[in-house]
Amino acid sequence: MTSPSATQDSYPYPNEPIWSRSEKAIARTAFDAALGRELHEVIQEAKRIASEIQQSSDLWDLEHYLTQRRKEIDRKYDYRYSQLTQVFGKLLYEQRLRQEELHGLREDKLKPIRSFAKFLAEDAA
Amino acid sequence: MTSPSATQDSYPYPNEPIWSRSEKAIARTAFDAALGRELHEVIQEAKRIASEIQQSSDLWDLEHYLTQRRKEIDRKYDYRYSQLTQVFGKLLYEQRLRQEELHGLREDKLKPIRSFAKFLAEDAA
Repeated sequence: MTSPSATQDSYPYPNEPIWSRSEKAIARTAFDAALGRELHEVIQEAKRIASEIQQSSDLWDLEHYLTQRRKEIDRKYDYRYSQLTQVFGKLLYEQRLRQEELHGLREDKLKPIRSFAKFLAEDAA
Repeated sequence: MTSPSATQDSYPYPNEPIWSRSEKAIARTAFDAALGRELHEVIQEAKRIASEIQQSSDLWDLEHYLTQRRKEIDRKYDYRYSQLTQVFGKLLYEQRLRQEELHGLREDKLKPIRSFAKFLAEDAA
């Protein structure tokens, strides 16, 4: 049987929870760390692709790769509190963030974050 | 005093001259050689920029550089016979093409090519 609160708990987009000052600090650190790691990855990959360029089509492939990655990163790293549970859920799912980095967030944040990560995993299966 | 034919001769966009078969072969070779050299230059520069990337802004600078160069090259290398005298004129002006590479073209092509190169040089002065 599904009560309204159970429905809300399992739904990956609950009404916006309130982020305390300490939670905001944890969120910012985790967000910046994941973004930094992803950017580092793109930098390494761009250097690798560039080093292997032999003809002009390789050059435009590199341009295309950079454009795609820039757009994807812009979309993914959206630091609005209304979006953060989904952002962190996606980063958990992609293993770009470890659960420990979110340590200190309250359950009203962690639950929808884990729930969204699970949803993405099931969706991709 | 300016006669109509003198005006036509000194104008950098004369009525389209007819390209003979041998002139087309010369034009194609010169065009491809200049394009190849310019692409080679962009490849070397992209490799250099990529090797020096340290932070994400450098990454998007590389993307921007590639996009700009691709658009510029697309615009510049326009292999339509109606455009070729301007294309070669510009390449001469930019020293991406040597006069000798156009050896074998008739004077009705060489004259507007040199004239356009001269126009660009004076315009930039």
